[in-house]
Amino acid sequence: MTPQITDQFVDVATMLADTARSVVRPWFRRGVGVESKKDASPVTVADRTAERVMRAILAERLPEHGVFGEEFGQDNAQADYQWLLDPVDGTRAFVTGRPLFGTLIALFYKGEPVLGILDQPVLGERWVGVKGRATVFTSSLGGQAHTRQDVALAEAEMSCTSPEMLELAPHDRWKMLKKQARRMTWGGDCYAYGLLALGQIDLIAECDMNPWDWGALVPIVQGAGGVMSAWDGSPLRMDGDRTVLAAGSPALHREAVRILQAG
Amino acid sequence: MTPQITDQFVDVATMLADTARSVVRPWFRRGVGVESKKDASPVTVADRTAERVMRAILAERLPEHGVFGEEFGQDNAQADYQWLLDPVDGTRAFVTGRPLFGTLIALFYKGEPVLGILDQPVLGERWVGVKGRATVFTSSLGGQAHTRQDVALAEAEMSCTSPEMLELAPHDRWKMLKKQARRMTWGGDCYAYGLLALGQIDLIAECDMNPWDWGALVPIVQGAGGVMSAWDGSPLRMDGDRTVLAAGSPALHREAVRILQAG
Repeated sequence: MTPQITDQFVDVATMLADTARSVVRPWFRRGVGVESKKDASPVTVADRTAERVMRAILAERLPEHGVFGEEFGQDNAQADYQWLLDPVDGTRAFVTGRPLFGTLIALFYKGEPVLGILDQPVLGERWVGVKGRATVFTSSLGGQAHTRQDVALAEAEMSCTSPEMLELAPHDRWKMLKKQARRMTWGGDCYAYGLLALGQIDLIAECDMNPWDWGALVPIVQGAGGVMSAWDGSPLRMDGDRTVLAAGSPALHREAVRILQAG
Repeated sequence: MTPQITDQFVDVATMLADTARSVVRPWFRRGVGVESKKDASPVTVADRTAERVMRAILAERLPEHGVFGEEFGQDNAQADYQWLLDPVDGTRAFVTGRPLFGTLIALFYKGEPVLGILDQPVLGERWVGVKGRATVFTSSLGGQAHTRQDVALAEAEMSCTSPEMLELAPHDRWKMLKKQARRMTWGGDCYAYGLLALGQIDLIAECDMNPWDWGALVPIVQGAGGVMSAWDGSPLRMDGDRTVLAAGSPALHREAVRILQAG
């Protein structure tokens, strides 16, 4: 049973996102020039520094919780509550100057994501999802956190970060899904799931995904009316097959799972 | 011989970009829901309305010049000066809520692009290029209009709007170029050329491009230190083979042409 997600947890998550934004933002479109083999790249510096400051906040505010980040490993691995941090999801976007990467902050309880923040530090956009609550979206660019319902597959806007990612898929039935959708747009990383939560995209099929890539996005997408699962329709698990399917509505999700399961 | 591009032309181009921004901006992330077959989509309304207002300005300010836009055809086809307008380049980006589409405004003189504006209406970013002058970039997100020089192909960040576009290429030697570059990022449309002008991307190879897709970008890229041509290295022409190659430096451009010409 999922416990109450207290306002304190949301407050801490918000502080993590605020500080990560302050740290990451100044490195955007900086350090132009080929990276020296000796010096860290801007994206690496931003990533490492933001993870450090977020860990410092968690150590002070919620020392009994676990923390996992790509750069500095896992603390309190046995705790029921685990924070998964990815300060810069979308390295290619960051490196090429596209303001569509994101900072991902997820809180898992016994393996299930219950709180998630997606923050775009440059544009100042933020999605906050809490299990059982409506997703909150703040942005000066417009948009509201409601997925599109009643979109048939033939009308669905589909998205995936790259064709190279799909080459790593466990099977190629994503090609059938792509063929039946209205249109595929490439690129996106975590930001695409944010757009799905805004009803701008209807379907995302990705693979080779780590828990810190999808954890924050589950409460955000579900709190906006969408569905997230593995490609076979089962719940996303930390030790799952690394596939991720997101759909704007339960009906579209069922249809996509049916196609991805056919064989 | 290219005539003087007067400040008047730059003033008019700026007014075109300002008005297009006002018209396009309100349609972004609006009209969520499947488009009715009877009603025009938000992107179509934005596109048509912006082209109309830009044509109205040109009719008043420079009535002797020619105008070509996708929606309303060509006026004064015999004039030496031709304005090519594309209010929304990057339909997929616009439709899916990504603020990386652009408004393109180009002035051609006897078939050669001599003035170009790339404007991002939502983020308020603008690139202004004039033949023989340094490109001017204004944005609150950071960046300066200088391409990266001294980047070897193996270190080059490459970009292309979509793999589907490259399926329309006259030959598949772009695959060799992609293989030899450091990394490919998909997505971008006109915005990717803006990022190349900022030194964030080093190489773009695209095809199936119309003059209104590349016209504005030539003075912008060249005024930032880069090179644009067809894939065979020849100057871009209105009646060319629709391929476009952009590189951050003359040396990288030569290397890319060498690979695209080999066969």
